[in-house]
Amino acid sequence: MRRFENSQPLSSALSLSLSRVTPLSESEEIAVPEAYGRVLAEEIFSSSNLPGFVRATMDGYAVRAQDTHNASHERPAILKVIGSVEMGEEPQKLPALQESEAIEITTGGPVPPNADAVVMLEETETLSDSVKVFASVEPGRHLLAADSDFQRGERVFYMGHRLRAIDIGALIALGRESVRVFKRVRVGVLNTGSELVSGRESPPPGKIRETNSYVLRGLIEAQGAKTQSYPIVPDDKSRLRAAVEQAVHETDFVLISGGSSVGARDWTFEVLQELGEVLVHGLQIRPGKPTISALIVQKPVVGLPGNPVSCALVFEKFVCPLLSKRSGVRVLLPAHRLVPARLLSKIESVKGREDFLAVRLKLDEDSGALFAEPIYGHTNNISTLVRADGIVSVPADLEKIEAGLTVWVELL
Amino acid sequence: MRRFENSQPLSSALSLSLSRVTPLSESEEIAVPEAYGRVLAEEIFSSSNLPGFVRATMDGYAVRAQDTHNASHERPAILKVIGSVEMGEEPQKLPALQESEAIEITTGGPVPPNADAVVMLEETETLSDSVKVFASVEPGRHLLAADSDFQRGERVFYMGHRLRAIDIGALIALGRESVRVFKRVRVGVLNTGSELVSGRESPPPGKIRETNSYVLRGLIEAQGAKTQSYPIVPDDKSRLRAAVEQAVHETDFVLISGGSSVGARDWTFEVLQELGEVLVHGLQIRPGKPTISALIVQKPVVGLPGNPVSCALVFEKFVCPLLSKRSGVRVLLPAHRLVPARLLSKIESVKGREDFLAVRLKLDEDSGALFAEPIYGHTNNISTLVRADGIVSVPADLEKIEAGLTVWVELL
Repeated sequence: MRRFENSQPLSSALSLSLSRVTPLSESEEIAVPEAYGRVLAEEIFSSSNLPGFVRATMDGYAVRAQDTHNASHERPAILKVIGSVEMGEEPQKLPALQESEAIEITTGGPVPPNADAVVMLEETETLSDSVKVFASVEPGRHLLAADSDFQRGERVFYMGHRLRAIDIGALIALGRESVRVFKRVRVGVLNTGSELVSGRESPPPGKIRETNSYVLRGLIEAQGAKTQSYPIVPDDKSRLRAAVEQAVHETDFVLISGGSSVGARDWTFEVLQELGEVLVHGLQIRPGKPTISALIVQKPVVGLPGNPVSCALVFEKFVCPLLSKRSGVRVLLPAHRLVPARLLSKIESVKGREDFLAVRLKLDEDSGALFAEPIYGHTNNISTLVRADGIVSVPADLEKIEAGLTVWVELL
Repeated sequence: MRRFENSQPLSSALSLSLSRVTPLSESEEIAVPEAYGRVLAEEIFSSSNLPGFVRATMDGYAVRAQDTHNASHERPAILKVIGSVEMGEEPQKLPALQESEAIEITTGGPVPPNADAVVMLEETETLSDSVKVFASVEPGRHLLAADSDFQRGERVFYMGHRLRAIDIGALIALGRESVRVFKRVRVGVLNTGSELVSGRESPPPGKIRETNSYVLRGLIEAQGAKTQSYPIVPDDKSRLRAAVEQAVHETDFVLISGGSSVGARDWTFEVLQELGEVLVHGLQIRPGKPTISALIVQKPVVGLPGNPVSCALVFEKFVCPLLSKRSGVRVLLPAHRLVPARLLSKIESVKGREDFLAVRLKLDEDSGALFAEPIYGHTNNISTLVRADGIVSVPADLEKIEAGLTVWVELL
């Protein structure tokens, strides 16, 4: 009886296989709105400051901060209202503020020359042609700087970043019409087993319909790759060998479902050993032990268990990371969308309100520990989420989460 | 100054809105391989027993269990080998076993008449035309019953189930060529704000490119719905009203980004109140407070914050569940893929091996508590995963997880 030649824990099997998988080299230029889920094959820099002008973050009055010095409810500053800013107006065409003047403004509006702060509407009382200001504001209050979203020359995305919905918005904000992305990986799917008939046939007694290719197609396409299915191969070594050679020739990544164990009719291991290099034979997991990882002419080939449950599970746990790397993805995060991470700094919140805070994940290469660093960018800036890896939620009954605690980060 | 009229915590805002959203009534018949991610508009029953014949789950010898009675290493049973079963052979054409006969078989092979157990190859020694059996086996050992995957007449999927990759395989196994699914929801996306120019234009100073429609399109399509984008609407009540009327007329679900707060240029609340019924104005979360939930002629309309970060977050936290219900989805699970649940029964595992166990989630309607019930189906059966909601992993250094403990369930 044959044996598993090189059985390993999932983690070391993955590390070993990942270290040998090379990203696809072909790329293509596509329109930005079509790039959702694709992997960048170029670095993206900002060619200008965004939003490019100073904006108000509150409804109220744009003022010169010094004109509100020492203002209070008892001693309001009285400023002359010289007009109001319409949304989308060109800032340089707005009247420049002179001493003790104010101009009405709404959230997102461009701030006129000489104004350096906004007083919230709630801290004012409007008179006929002037306004009472009940609070002093420091310079910069309720303003968003001209380069607060992106700075000219700043690197926004690394090569190998998989574009999320929010990233498509960022590319639009940056004025990009097209981007260079890696071509979609073509995954060849083979099924072997003399008991199998195709999913479109009615199986006679003793045979069953082949289903793994249908399941794998869904899982592969959810990863942004393309599927090429091949006819069922019976338990015959030379026919399996010919089929594997064809699939390796025609695609970028090959999956073989069935024949990966050590029984009398399991030929996958011998075929892969003859055609290329077997890295792993046997995973120390359940289900999923009969898994083979190999390389043939630099193309990854994975032998999957024929059992549908094991096949789907090994795809998620083992094939997904390899496929991501082959697709050009630079940083591999777990496929599930929540990851635990230790908070790098305290999060403060308010009782009775559920807060969601963007965080950046940082991997300590030595310990393998994952840390979450809160990002306090303004919600007006698309860059806040672009720079984030995920979201930490603070339940309504918590006032804070202390630094050092482990939180669940929901990946974006 | 206007105020948020009906501000609520996220959970109650969601419950209230969900209770008023009705699923789309239109459905269509599509080919099974194209149904990944679609929502079933019919119940699916099994029309036959599957696999339909008794199969071996190990390589070895099919035997009559009684012929191995009391067999041991010291006193092996000696059985006459009358042949071997080829994969995919018709069971009724195989020779029926007589007293003290055995037949060679591999995993998945059909068990011949009169055989009621399989002896593992490891518990035998092959002689020229007979086999020594070193262990007694009970009837049913290493066999999979003819109806172990699906029983004739069994309900496999409820109406309102969103088809996962594994479910497509199950439909194929059941012999289905097509299924009836709900039509994809058409989501109308409006953006309002006089400061916005389209993503294809270069904004003059004071204006910015509109990006939310691009982000929303990615998020909407990831939910299996379709997007219809409308031209940017300036801060003008009558133009916003006309645009909303058109979108409600042409689509099934409307999102309006911007104008949802309480500032002087925010018209969404008034427009929605005039055209339909406002359910929620203001969410007690951060970011995302300026959110409006309304119904116009039974179609959900959500006013989203114009800030890109808030817009994307409110989509994930608030719009996603409403969109799922509108799409026909019957049971709404959280959008993130890990959920905590209390184990209903102990899981046993083996040290040094990482185990993955399928579980079914059960919701206690009264307490809202989620429980995970381990499913011990055979890995050969696609039904094991079809019946499961998720997977619990048992790390290699654990031997068991006690009932009553909370585990993280990774949703399938």
